[in-house]
Amino acid sequence: MSGRFITLEGGEGVGKSTQLRRVADALARRGIDVVVTREPGGSPGAEAIRALLLTGAADRWSARAEALLFAAARADHVERTIRPAIASGRWVLCDRFVDSSRAYQATGSALGDDDVMALHRVGSAGLLPDRTLVLALDADEALARAGDRDSAGSDRIGGRAADYHDHVARAFHRIAAAEPERVRLVDGSGPADSVTDRLVDALADLLP
Amino acid sequence: MSGRFITLEGGEGVGKSTQLRRVADALARRGIDVVVTREPGGSPGAEAIRALLLTGAADRWSARAEALLFAAARADHVERTIRPAIASGRWVLCDRFVDSSRAYQATGSALGDDDVMALHRVGSAGLLPDRTLVLALDADEALARAGDRDSAGSDRIGGRAADYHDHVARAFHRIAAAEPERVRLVDGSGPADSVTDRLVDALADLLP
Ligand SMILES: Nc1ncnc2c1ncn2[C@@H]1O[C@H](COP(=O)(O)OP(=O)(O)OP(=O)(O)O)[C@@H](O)[C@H]1O
Ligand SMILES: Nc1ncnc2c1ncn2[C@@H]1O[C@H](COP(=O)(O)OP(=O)(O)OP(=O)(O)O)[C@@H](O)[C@H]1O
Ligand SMILES: [Mg+2]
Ligand SMILES: [Mg+2]
Repeated sequence: MSGRFITLEGGEGVGKSTQLRRVADALARRGIDVVVTREPGGSPGAEAIRALLLTGAADRWSARAEALLFAAARADHVERTIRPAIASGRWVLCDRFVDSSRAYQATGSALGDDDVMALHRVGSAGLLPDRTLVLALDADEALARAGDRDSAGSDRIGGRAADYHDHVARAFHRIAAAEPERVRLVDGSGPADSVTDRLVDALADLLP
Repeated sequence: MSGRFITLEGGEGVGKSTQLRRVADALARRGIDVVVTREPGGSPGAEAIRALLLTGAADRWSARAEALLFAAARADHVERTIRPAIASGRWVLCDRFVDSSRAYQATGSALGDDDVMALHRVGSAGLLPDRTLVLALDADEALARAGDRDSAGSDRIGGRAADYHDHVARAFHRIAAAEPERVRLVDGSGPADSVTDRLVDALADLLP
């Protein structure tokens, strides 16, 4: 039996990593064999590319080079980690995937959504998740949460200005509106256990 | 006045690096301001990606991930080194460029020429050289030359089997036949100074 591929998306600090572990636990309690992974990274090659992407000066990479590096990391992650796990019947829960590239590239770069999807087709044969859960959270609340966590400073991308992150949030809303079957917007506010309940509800039709 | 962009192409050991320096000297003697560069690499970001591409196990990268990494390195090289030099009136001589990706990807990988060119459009806005010089050399002679040089062993890509390199050579011939105005096949056999003369002849229509 083939597994499922589920992604968690949303801007900085909306609670993706927190909820990924909680949703994985909830699925495991239902007897599902779950693999948790994240982007960029999730396989040895992709982690090596991640180091290039998240370190160095803010202008280390042009938007074009950056898009290609994300797509390269994703191609390796899909081929070496995600596809083998799904093929063996496991559920893959992934922290960020191609929709993050679409949302971030759509924001002030020379590249369009069609460019990002062209790279995804060449790199990963256009693999899309069975379900994408987008955590929606008021921008101020998300930045406050991430700020508490990262008081020592953020990485190359997280460190960008607040209105950049606002554009990213709106891009995620557009993606959810355009693909309502695959992509579900989930309210990320309030206590963590309430958010987890909403996320598992948004997977109800896929559960065995 | 805008400069020119010239690339040297061909399989392993046909004499590209040897001739690049010699052609650069010949152009400099004609008063041309020449920049010599190479792929993968040619800018700090691209050199960092080069290290990922040329080290590690033979199967470190899938064909798809490898194609994206080459395109990412090229995007950085074009934006940070090649375009600025051409814009300032210099001639850029580059050891390998997108035609190497086309020739190598066309050989036993899941990707087609259209995929390679799609990556090149997104990464480098499809930049093509004003002239591409393909050095043609009998496969045995090329391997013997490269073998003399690399007696300590070759890198991740150079180390592949002989019939792989034969396929690559034929792919370069197809590219030259398809784009006769941009791409010129030049006989790479015989003494180095004769080869240099043939290469400079193949640039005659571009010289000031
Ligand atoms: N429901 C919640 N209520 C309050 N704080 C929360 C909640 N969920 C997560 N947090 C806190 O908010 C911060 C950001 O959460 P988390 O790291 O999970 O977000 P993220 O979406 O993964 O962020 P990033 O995009 O930076 O990886 C963390 O300090 C986390 O403990
Ligand atoms: N005309 C020539 N006659 C004999 N030997 C040559 C000639 N041109 C180059 N060589 C030698 O052949 C070897 C390969 O040449 P070179 O390194 O220039 O090839 P290349 O095309 O750059 O190879 P690679 O693809 O591996 O970078 C070197 O040892 C070089 O000195
Ligand atoms: Mg996180
Ligand atoms: Mg060389």
